[in-house]
Amino acid sequence: VSARIDDVEVTLGENLVTQLKIAEFPNSFAAEPCKVAVVGFGTVGSSVARILSQRGLETLQLRYICNRNLSKKNVAGIAKQVEWTENFEDILDSDVDVVVELIGGLHPAEDWVRRALKAGKSVVTANKQLIANRGPELTRLAQEHGQHIIFGASVAGGIPVISGLQEGLAGDRIVKLQGILNGTCNYILTRIENAGLSFEQALAEAQAKGFAEANAEEDIDGHDARAKLTILCRAALKCDILPEQIAAYSIAEIEQLDFEYAHDLGYTIRQVSTAELHNGGILARVQPSLVDKKSALARVTGSKNLLVASGEFGGDTEFSGFGAGGGPTAVAVVSDVVWLAMNRQRSACNNSTPVRCRDVSADFDSAAYVRFKVDDRPGIIAAIASCFAAHGINIDSIRQQKGHDKSCLPFVITLESCRSSILEKALKEIRSLDFLVAPPVSMPVIG
Amino acid sequence: VSARIDDVEVTLGENLVTQLKIAEFPNSFAAEPCKVAVVGFGTVGSSVARILSQRGLETLQLRYICNRNLSKKNVAGIAKQVEWTENFEDILDSDVDVVVELIGGLHPAEDWVRRALKAGKSVVTANKQLIANRGPELTRLAQEHGQHIIFGASVAGGIPVISGLQEGLAGDRIVKLQGILNGTCNYILTRIENAGLSFEQALAEAQAKGFAEANAEEDIDGHDARAKLTILCRAALKCDILPEQIAAYSIAEIEQLDFEYAHDLGYTIRQVSTAELHNGGILARVQPSLVDKKSALARVTGSKNLLVASGEFGGDTEFSGFGAGGGPTAVAVVSDVVWLAMNRQRSACNNSTPVRCRDVSADFDSAAYVRFKVDDRPGIIAAIASCFAAHGINIDSIRQQKGHDKSCLPFVITLESCRSSILEKALKEIRSLDFLVAPPVSMPVIG
Repeated sequence: VSARIDDVEVTLGENLVTQLKIAEFPNSFAAEPCKVAVVGFGTVGSSVARILSQRGLETLQLRYICNRNLSKKNVAGIAKQVEWTENFEDILDSDVDVVVELIGGLHPAEDWVRRALKAGKSVVTANKQLIANRGPELTRLAQEHGQHIIFGASVAGGIPVISGLQEGLAGDRIVKLQGILNGTCNYILTRIENAGLSFEQALAEAQAKGFAEANAEEDIDGHDARAKLTILCRAALKCDILPEQIAAYSIAEIEQLDFEYAHDLGYTIRQVSTAELHNGGILARVQPSLVDKKSALARVTGSKNLLVASGEFGGDTEFSGFGAGGGPTAVAVVSDVVWLAMNRQRSACNNSTPVRCRDVSADFDSAAYVRFKVDDRPGIIAAIASCFAAHGINIDSIRQQKGHDKSCLPFVITLESCRSSILEKALKEIRSLDFLVAPPVSMPVIG
Repeated sequence: VSARIDDVEVTLGENLVTQLKIAEFPNSFAAEPCKVAVVGFGTVGSSVARILSQRGLETLQLRYICNRNLSKKNVAGIAKQVEWTENFEDILDSDVDVVVELIGGLHPAEDWVRRALKAGKSVVTANKQLIANRGPELTRLAQEHGQHIIFGASVAGGIPVISGLQEGLAGDRIVKLQGILNGTCNYILTRIENAGLSFEQALAEAQAKGFAEANAEEDIDGHDARAKLTILCRAALKCDILPEQIAAYSIAEIEQLDFEYAHDLGYTIRQVSTAELHNGGILARVQPSLVDKKSALARVTGSKNLLVASGEFGGDTEFSGFGAGGGPTAVAVVSDVVWLAMNRQRSACNNSTPVRCRDVSADFDSAAYVRFKVDDRPGIIAAIASCFAAHGINIDSIRQQKGHDKSCLPFVITLESCRSSILEKALKEIRSLDFLVAPPVSMPVIG
């Protein structure tokens, strides 16, 4: 393969591009292409197989597709020479170089990934739970066996945040991450906001449209987002934490009226994931929050994702796009496979190892929004205000919309910046006041 | 270096992180760190030297700083063991592994870069003119000498677009790029828009604030942006073109009244760079354009940059942040140096080679905005409308603000989608009509 293409002038026929590009780098490609097995043939798996079959990436060859309960059929758009199997052992026994794990969850994914690495195969995975919970030990296992495990698709789907943080911004010291990492919650919140739906209606619509699983608790309660934030903390803040160290708050209490109050204040509401270096530890949380209407966070609508990385030297860099879906996630997976095809023979990993960190707190300093529903009578504001005052919390404003029933009257108090732990103590006392007809809903105000 | 840190638990002391991270990857780092020379000690150069000195990246060692007319002084924040020289030959004769070229322009940068590569040193550069005009041949020269030349900082400063396109989105087929690549023009346009300045006033302000060079023609006329677009076309569209193949239009004719008309239409005005694959060739241009007020392009204010990459499989991915300035550009440079420290011993480059493309056209199909200034009399609209009709161009709307002098009356005609080449023919005829007091200003309407 010694031909050079310096003088070849062509218009852009994709096939010709593909054929020629290999000639330029005689050292970079063995005669053998990188052989790939896709394990798990759902939405993402079938998109990955389709891209590998159609993109004409001659450095990559899709050899196996493994799926349980496979009705072995000739799926449109998949290369004919691909072998289909229901048995993962076939993959382990084969000569594939890279196993793409797309079955999700911890079982049997963890076991299969471990066995693939031990069998001398590198792994590409989109499995955020696996990486969030077992990432560092799987990386070590891969290194022990001279392999790689890469997981760019495990966070933010098609948006290349992991490579952007680890390589593109390697020269900076990232001190803070903030973003919208769960498209399901963002879809639900923007539908409550723009279509006037209740939370339950918006959730049902998201499920009907395929933006939310039948069991959407992982998304709603913030556990999905915090798994992703865990992975990002390791990649960008070089801090190894576990998902359960991050406080996560549900969006289920957010109502249409919260958006009305937020809009009045110049804000909207998003599920925001935040992590920042702080006094040798980390502050982190996933929480529905008021965000300035003009901010990048507010502009993320529907099922899109956004990540803002703040660097000590380079300031804020934003990555946004489709955080989920077969196509975008498959692009992230194939990008990782392309990287492996180039780098699998290297024993090194170009990431510095994150350091285990136990000091993870959600005790941010921030302004807050608290929405009450009360059985109206004289003295309510005085009682609540006294309680905040006793904890040294300053009230910024008190707002009450007209037209509500006095027996279930909503109003909002906004608070000046205070520590979350102190606000929580005050709210604990307030919750016991007998005029409340529902627990107060509190959210931080960002920006 | 066989220690492992699996069981070490520490809070995040940066020094400890730095010291420990090397232990984990015994194969990835030679005992010798990667030795770096910074050539050019202006805003970016001094930031690069500061980051290399302060970040504690033990895999990298800043050995030399080379600058002409150097008053050899101990600059604050630069490691003391660094050698300062005014003579580039000292760098060539030294044992440095990586030369960071930050002098800009073609001369002497091109000669120095060639000599560095031939001397067995890899090169990191932020020099967009050098890469736009000589990129492919310098890449070949680097390969011939077993070296690398990397240029992530040559486009969009601190925003990691090159690595994002080449690695993060490697699994997709990028078919279109659109963005705001020149912070100077964006600053000027947003100041005309928001502060009501004239173009000349906004330019003078940008120069006074350091956002524009004394000679800002490269920026204003779109030549800076098209050099960057050239580099992006190679990286993302795999299409090797030269800057002069891209049509570039000045922003100097844009007035406050254009923003008023644009706002009325629900748009604003930005200098937009676009390139897309089209019928085996490329459509590309840099042009002030009307962009939907709600679009990502419209939201880029001040000196920021944005790039939207559209992939066949993954849809739109956006990258945004600080496109210029010492800190962000230095982060991009150091990120490239970090990459080299990991990869310099590899002979391969993980980019496919772009294919030379001669079929570059600016003949987009798009709706258009045309602003006229006329010496008012009956029959003007009829004359202009007849001219558009003769070329098969449909008029969408005619708008005229009140309160202008009849001898220099501005009005705007918006046109339905038509080919730029046909619009240009119509405008050529219209320009000869004797009631015009200034040449018409036309801009595409995007979105």
